[in-house]
Amino acid sequence: MPGRTQRKVIDPISSQPLADFKVGVDSVIFSVDTSQNRLLVLLVMRHQEPFVNYWGLPGTLVRQGESLENAAYRILAEKIRAKNLYLEQLYTFGGPHRDPREEANSFGIRYLSVSYFALVRFEDAELIADGVSGIAWYPVKEVPQLAFDHNEILAYGHRRLRNKLEYSPVAFEVLPEMFTLSDLYQLYTTVLGENFSDYSNFRAKLLKLGFLCDTGIKVSRGAGRPASLYRFDATAFAPFKDKPLVFI
Amino acid sequence: MPGRTQRKVIDPISSQPLADFKVGVDSVIFSVDTSQNRLLVLLVMRHQEPFVNYWGLPGTLVRQGESLENAAYRILAEKIRAKNLYLEQLYTFGGPHRDPREEANSFGIRYLSVSYFALVRFEDAELIADGVSGIAWYPVKEVPQLAFDHNEILAYGHRRLRNKLEYSPVAFEVLPEMFTLSDLYQLYTTVLGENFSDYSNFRAKLLKLGFLCDTGIKVSRGAGRPASLYRFDATAFAPFKDKPLVFI
Repeated sequence: MPGRTQRKVIDPISSQPLADFKVGVDSVIFSVDTSQNRLLVLLVMRHQEPFVNYWGLPGTLVRQGESLENAAYRILAEKIRAKNLYLEQLYTFGGPHRDPREEANSFGIRYLSVSYFALVRFEDAELIADGVSGIAWYPVKEVPQLAFDHNEILAYGHRRLRNKLEYSPVAFEVLPEMFTLSDLYQLYTTVLGENFSDYSNFRAKLLKLGFLCDTGIKVSRGAGRPASLYRFDATAFAPFKDKPLVFI
Repeated sequence: MPGRTQRKVIDPISSQPLADFKVGVDSVIFSVDTSQNRLLVLLVMRHQEPFVNYWGLPGTLVRQGESLENAAYRILAEKIRAKNLYLEQLYTFGGPHRDPREEANSFGIRYLSVSYFALVRFEDAELIADGVSGIAWYPVKEVPQLAFDHNEILAYGHRRLRNKLEYSPVAFEVLPEMFTLSDLYQLYTTVLGENFSDYSNFRAKLLKLGFLCDTGIKVSRGAGRPASLYRFDATAFAPFKDKPLVFI
């Protein structure tokens, strides 16, 4: 908005009282089912108002004395057991009226959401079914209307995931330790969509980066000739760790 | 923290009451003084407790009915007039005890800070001196101990700026319309530090990307032979806009 700061008038909102907030944390937990080439997101069914019986992102409100991140880990510990679940902060959604509990004209307590993001390996993640709450890995393409602005938070998380795949070696955290280049390509296609790159360009680019190591082992799948199994060579990658790099 | 979600015990914090928050917005506004090769950040002197007489990032608390972003623009409009001041959200700092107004043992109201980030062209930015508040462009290298956790927020903003320089054409928003490749290199060096790349590699890489356009105009500065003036060709860049790319 060019010129936005050119106003000379004092904004009348300066004389409004300060807003009061409760702070929620909502997590976008992605996984990739590599056997079915589906990108999945963890959703939970809500059992209370507002948005009762809607699916939503796993979240909670921050308690006294609790950090934002600890609140996010606390609620996830009730929903999922996963190796290497590292949350990173995504975005904070805090506009007025994003939560129906704030009545439109009352200037009541507002609800701000700090969102977090993680990608977990599908095989290493176990959902905790307690017989009461619905909890599910939902294919991102089939996600229904969610509670609150959670569709928007999910869309933001999906963009972050795409970025991470483009600029970081995150793919190797969700693939099995040994994988074919075709497995790797499928993973990228699952997250980035078809046509992000053709296979031979992708293959050439990745091999040129020099941190995929051919294990010498071959696997046969289907009709084609056997494919080589590779692994990600963390030692070869180390010098690039803090350098800007593009993976595709 | 591997295994963090493996705990079976219910966290006793679940039974604590919800925390109450006021929400602040703090902005990290960078500029580059290209004539002196200095990276600058906008600071304001605080005139009230807590941290009276400390420098800090320009910020305010969110009012009733106000969005986070509007609050950030509102306070900046009192401090700086700048063309093309586009804020982007940086990070949210919300741990307990980050603000001394929250007394350590009282579980009083907490103060969360949503931070924003912008880079403005030095020549297009005018600070608004109202005769009361101190306001200054501070060289990032010489920033003193700031109020609250603002040094940490600044460090986070600096990392974001480095990233943007590496992965986006943001440099061309702060350079004059026509610049020498040496000007461009100086800008990168100012933000990324010496030794991020040697000049000839940098020059070759940038020219190869194909969206620097030689204007045919030469300038003489100092003793060397005249240097060509370039401009950023937004049309040539358009096809790369949403592609992952590294600029250095």
